[in-house]
Amino acid sequence: MGRIVQKFGGTSVGSVERIQNAARRVIKEVENGNEVVVVVSAMGKTTDELVRLAGEISANPSKREMDMLLTTGEQITIALLTMALHQQGYKAQSLTGWQAGIQTENAFSNARILDIDSTRIEDLLKSGHIAVVAGFQGVITETNDIATLGRGGSDTTAVALAAALKADRCDIYTDVTGVFTTDPRVVKTARKIPSISYDEMLEMANLGAGVLHPRAVEFAKNYQISLEVRSSMSDERGTLVEEESSMEQNLMVRGLAFEGNITKITVSNMPNNINALSDLFTILASNGINVDIIIQNVMNEEKTNISFSIETSHLSETQEVLAGFQDKLGFESISYESGLAKVSIVGSGMISNHGVAAKMFKALSDQNILIKMVSTSEIKVSTVVKQEDMVKSIETLHDIFELDARVPVQNS
Amino acid sequence: MGRIVQKFGGTSVGSVERIQNAARRVIKEVENGNEVVVVVSAMGKTTDELVRLAGEISANPSKREMDMLLTTGEQITIALLTMALHQQGYKAQSLTGWQAGIQTENAFSNARILDIDSTRIEDLLKSGHIAVVAGFQGVITETNDIATLGRGGSDTTAVALAAALKADRCDIYTDVTGVFTTDPRVVKTARKIPSISYDEMLEMANLGAGVLHPRAVEFAKNYQISLEVRSSMSDERGTLVEEESSMEQNLMVRGLAFEGNITKITVSNMPNNINALSDLFTILASNGINVDIIIQNVMNEEKTNISFSIETSHLSETQEVLAGFQDKLGFESISYESGLAKVSIVGSGMISNHGVAAKMFKALSDQNILIKMVSTSEIKVSTVVKQEDMVKSIETLHDIFELDARVPVQNS
Repeated sequence: MGRIVQKFGGTSVGSVERIQNAARRVIKEVENGNEVVVVVSAMGKTTDELVRLAGEISANPSKREMDMLLTTGEQITIALLTMALHQQGYKAQSLTGWQAGIQTENAFSNARILDIDSTRIEDLLKSGHIAVVAGFQGVITETNDIATLGRGGSDTTAVALAAALKADRCDIYTDVTGVFTTDPRVVKTARKIPSISYDEMLEMANLGAGVLHPRAVEFAKNYQISLEVRSSMSDERGTLVEEESSMEQNLMVRGLAFEGNITKITVSNMPNNINALSDLFTILASNGINVDIIIQNVMNEEKTNISFSIETSHLSETQEVLAGFQDKLGFESISYESGLAKVSIVGSGMISNHGVAAKMFKALSDQNILIKMVSTSEIKVSTVVKQEDMVKSIETLHDIFELDARVPVQNS
Repeated sequence: MGRIVQKFGGTSVGSVERIQNAARRVIKEVENGNEVVVVVSAMGKTTDELVRLAGEISANPSKREMDMLLTTGEQITIALLTMALHQQGYKAQSLTGWQAGIQTENAFSNARILDIDSTRIEDLLKSGHIAVVAGFQGVITETNDIATLGRGGSDTTAVALAAALKADRCDIYTDVTGVFTTDPRVVKTARKIPSISYDEMLEMANLGAGVLHPRAVEFAKNYQISLEVRSSMSDERGTLVEEESSMEQNLMVRGLAFEGNITKITVSNMPNNINALSDLFTILASNGINVDIIIQNVMNEEKTNISFSIETSHLSETQEVLAGFQDKLGFESISYESGLAKVSIVGSGMISNHGVAAKMFKALSDQNILIKMVSTSEIKVSTVVKQEDMVKSIETLHDIFELDARVPVQNS
């Protein structure tokens, strides 16, 4: 007998029919002799609707009250899913975050989980119940306030519960069948990845693959929880996220991630003192501007040029902030280039294959694609290219790294 | 400085605009130097919508899960109202039932409040906050489960908080301007009652006046909480519900209540043993049939006829239940008369005015209205008449007891 945590995202519980479908997946695992804990998100567009209501009242609502408001979404789903399980004759009980013992730090809207007191869930499992837990929420122990875990919070709840309960597996049910080598809507030959390491998944997730939140992946990595990302609408096996297997380790490139609407900003002739980089990016961060790739190009001992990439939607804001600090930072001018995109290859095999980046650059230049910026980590190479070259870049790289040529998809 | 509990019902918080309007009423009391605790219901049709969702999943959902589901409605309102108060620059904090310390018995869907630990609310008031509390809900201390208080639960929450907090006043904001001598949609000259005693209000509420739940009135009576029922859409003074003042005590009739769709059932020639009444009404009660007026007419030492009134919608069910127990109860036959209505006069002055009932009967017979059943209490006389005579009966009684001829309505 195993112990499984199943997580159903918003689209997987987006209607009564889908909640009933989720119940069937829960029951299947129970019938296989497993103890099951289910974590659910709010139904479909519920959260958006609540955010809209709050927006009609206040442009800047209190975070505490937003958490109070938004946590009702998951509470509705746990009650309905539990009713659906009862209806099929199974013992089940719903639990809000505080009832499930999910204790967070004293912070609203983006609280981290500090601890889980799993006594109540353990008691439910012992007495043959399915525990149905509201994702995305916990309680601040000192104040008895309700806090949310921020974006991807339900994934994090599921993985944290799997760790606390020493579950054998954590299944993340979503609206795609798994993690793909790249976005199948862009590249027709994109293929589902049967297995991916935590670090690779982190790079894929951060780069926009979006099926599993990076926080949840980090949590899973820290506690060595095996995840499976799979569709609630199909019986197809999904993608296993786990410590890399030696057999797979040599795969140079596991997948491709990409992101459009990037702007490159260059700050020219800034005094090259020891605080230059620190001052510049501290100012940007404290003004809420997320910077991605950073390149420094020292002109001479006294002057430096610094380039960085941002989302184009933050361009005018970034320009304003920098203009306001021109005197303090001492740079001569700012220039920018919009209409760019980021294309990245991800794979833990790169660590021992130094030629991977070179192969990527050559493949792109063979297609006359100009690379504007480059950034590398141990398991990833990102390039910034013109937005109009993005799709061609992805197709070219998907091809050159043979991402459509691997093991066939297995059915469970 | 006073301390006030304000309660806003579903229609009074039914939209963003109405929530903002409720916030203005709260702020007005704060600006008058009062400490304010606000109790709110779910927005407009939210509860109906949640009940509908549950109904799609299960014809008979678990009470615990229904409570889990429905309590989200009030939680949404407390967050939004608190945001609206913040938006106007006031300190406020929302509290769910469990956060507000509302402890209930171990029962779902219709739990009674056992105790209120008002520490958190007291702390909020002390630090200059408005406390915004979810009505209709509490926590079962032993199990940490969420329970609802049943119909009229938000009224009960407000009155119970007023008692626990030793509030000076409890204002019940609703969609009517107060308690009327009778339904103004039926009798054009119906007049708002400036002040009514708890007992009179109980008789009016039970008989269908419907603006204030009987449980809340009983609670208010037990703890001597002064209530004011008033409209959230107007500044008009409402109706005070409080221990009767000596000046008002002599008013014979305070108001008229009525209810259509009544059926009178007669069980004939039942053995007249000591358990006859008890057996009959125990069987009906255990089958969920609410009986209102009961009349026993002993035929002789051995046989008795018993008549009682029910809502016509329960007629076929009642007939089935009685038929099933005919052997056990030993009666000879059942007959019934539908198309009836109940018309009642209510007033604490009746206690010392024995002629009131006689005056009522004479007024009706002068109009050729046949009285089918009569039931009296110390402060009420109910008659059952033909449904077609109902409106004429009410108009006649409203007139004869001069209900439209009293003190003019005061504006605050």
